[in-house]
Amino acid sequence: MIETDILIIGAGPTGLFTVFEAGLLKLKCHLIDGLPQPGGQLAELYPKKPIYDIPGYPEVLAGDLVDNLMEQIKPFEPGFTLGERAQDLEKLDDGTFIVTTDEGTKHHAKVVAIAGGLGSFEPRKPPISNLADYEKKGVSYMVKNPEDYRDQSVVIAGGGDSALDWSIYLADIASEVTLIHRRNEFRGALESVDRVKELKDLGKIKLITPAEVVGIEGESQLESLVIRKNNNPEEDFKIETDHFIPLFGLSPKLGPISKWGLEIEKNAIKVDNSLDYQTNVPGVYAIGDVNTYPGKLKLILCGFHEATMMCQSAYQRIFPDKRYVMKYTTVGGVTGFDGSKKEAPKAVVKAID
Amino acid sequence: MIETDILIIGAGPTGLFTVFEAGLLKLKCHLIDGLPQPGGQLAELYPKKPIYDIPGYPEVLAGDLVDNLMEQIKPFEPGFTLGERAQDLEKLDDGTFIVTTDEGTKHHAKVVAIAGGLGSFEPRKPPISNLADYEKKGVSYMVKNPEDYRDQSVVIAGGGDSALDWSIYLADIASEVTLIHRRNEFRGALESVDRVKELKDLGKIKLITPAEVVGIEGESQLESLVIRKNNNPEEDFKIETDHFIPLFGLSPKLGPISKWGLEIEKNAIKVDNSLDYQTNVPGVYAIGDVNTYPGKLKLILCGFHEATMMCQSAYQRIFPDKRYVMKYTTVGGVTGFDGSKKEAPKAVVKAID
Repeated sequence: MIETDILIIGAGPTGLFTVFEAGLLKLKCHLIDGLPQPGGQLAELYPKKPIYDIPGYPEVLAGDLVDNLMEQIKPFEPGFTLGERAQDLEKLDDGTFIVTTDEGTKHHAKVVAIAGGLGSFEPRKPPISNLADYEKKGVSYMVKNPEDYRDQSVVIAGGGDSALDWSIYLADIASEVTLIHRRNEFRGALESVDRVKELKDLGKIKLITPAEVVGIEGESQLESLVIRKNNNPEEDFKIETDHFIPLFGLSPKLGPISKWGLEIEKNAIKVDNSLDYQTNVPGVYAIGDVNTYPGKLKLILCGFHEATMMCQSAYQRIFPDKRYVMKYTTVGGVTGFDGSKKEAPKAVVKAID
Repeated sequence: MIETDILIIGAGPTGLFTVFEAGLLKLKCHLIDGLPQPGGQLAELYPKKPIYDIPGYPEVLAGDLVDNLMEQIKPFEPGFTLGERAQDLEKLDDGTFIVTTDEGTKHHAKVVAIAGGLGSFEPRKPPISNLADYEKKGVSYMVKNPEDYRDQSVVIAGGGDSALDWSIYLADIASEVTLIHRRNEFRGALESVDRVKELKDLGKIKLITPAEVVGIEGESQLESLVIRKNNNPEEDFKIETDHFIPLFGLSPKLGPISKWGLEIEKNAIKVDNSLDYQTNVPGVYAIGDVNTYPGKLKLILCGFHEATMMCQSAYQRIFPDKRYVMKYTTVGGVTGFDGSKKEAPKAVVKAID
């Protein structure tokens, strides 16, 4: 059982910044995220795209913002359960919570902060009748750990940035990478498209277009795929492969959270924005894009504010008898759980003679 | 008469970021601030000190944050009335406002956003009986424009960073700089104290300690100061000077704003935080440290959120019939009033053959 003060569901920018504000209050955080790395959409969907409305950043790449947040929260030693989805919420008699993931990992927390963004990202799956039979048996919808593919053969399907970028990345790791797309045209960053062309010319990526995977075969494990070229069944052929990764995009779904007894409106969790972004279940907060209230704006900078307000309320819930006196970081510095201390240079008192 | 959509009172970080969010909505902003430069406290009180709790910045110098905000809002061409204090608010029959400064500058705006921080900074003044008689006649409490002192003689009084830093700065501009402090010890950044010592040894700053200015003399204009050394009237002597700048710190006061008919609580302006940070006067908002509501935290990051929510409400007030559909800056880019356009590189659609 993982123990923490605040269990944060969702490791996007709002969830990450929560660790910092909680840390200033000496509260420990643990984060759960279904994606294999922290950063939420910013890391998964558009790490190389610029954001222009983060206050104080005329321009910042989404991936860099995640890196900066990770650096900012490092002193507060957050724990992570990644690649697992928060499944069940149980409220104990003492007012604390147990959250269990789809893989059975249990977390015990005094407070739960749902920072789930648009929800957990569910992969769009190709319409292959026996696809589900091969999940975790050679078929996966995201690359959790590239090393899983070392010296093995991989077929990637898709025509967007994910398909292009993972083909490029795995070309150096897998023994063979085949990229299949139902059109000849790919849609993505120019440099990614050009790089795939280069790797194809070097023989490091095998390209099959226009084509689709229409069948999967194998005893207890994926062994081969049936490929249909030019949308013509008469051209069907088989290729052997260890892995099949269809990358047809991720579609966010509120998912299991929607069954936790929380008041839901427009696919978002209703919170009390006039006070602390708490849901109708005391001790469970919802912050960032996942929540809704009158005038709600789904902006990262709003999530930062909501996280900060929420941490104050969590502190009062956890320590009902303590009174917290806020100190500005410029004045009080930042004291990490790891023993680190950042602080402004002190003024000296010195005579000039 | 200066015309604008949103008149922002206070050019600290919250006021500055308001320009950006308003700009995304194609609303034009003008800012009034009593200080001679934008940035509020960050620029005036601690430009070289680090802030650790700006989301996405593990550490940022206050002055750099101001520079970054100025860069971020540049495309939206904000207007500034600096070194003047907002004095009077008049609401016209058509629901618009006229704000007049202490120097008589008039501003006409559709919406007023008070981002006044802790209030306007009032200088702490030394107890010299006829001090007020020489204000604007040789006595000033802040350096608005260093060039005003070129080739003239200046006496600075004070023992903190402002006194040290302005003595250093003006040593290159004024014909003579004298620094007077009632103790031998100065309190400030080590490098500033050391630099004053160097300049003193070079003969570029004259140092008189422990001493105080106890009298001012001059016909229609400051001509000379009476200096008391060692707290001993028998050691009083006179020095001639063109300027006297006592720098004994700034103390924030809500000031004239407190007489604008706004609901005040604990020296701050009450706002409706459940919606749009509007005050009891429709069309007048209060954002950042100057406002109060249940659970209010006086943090820069909260001011950013409040500014953003407020701009949406201002838009609805100004264009009651238009419906604004928010576009993420990563998707829609940022189109400046100056004709500039920032946007993410577009995806290409390209065949690989």
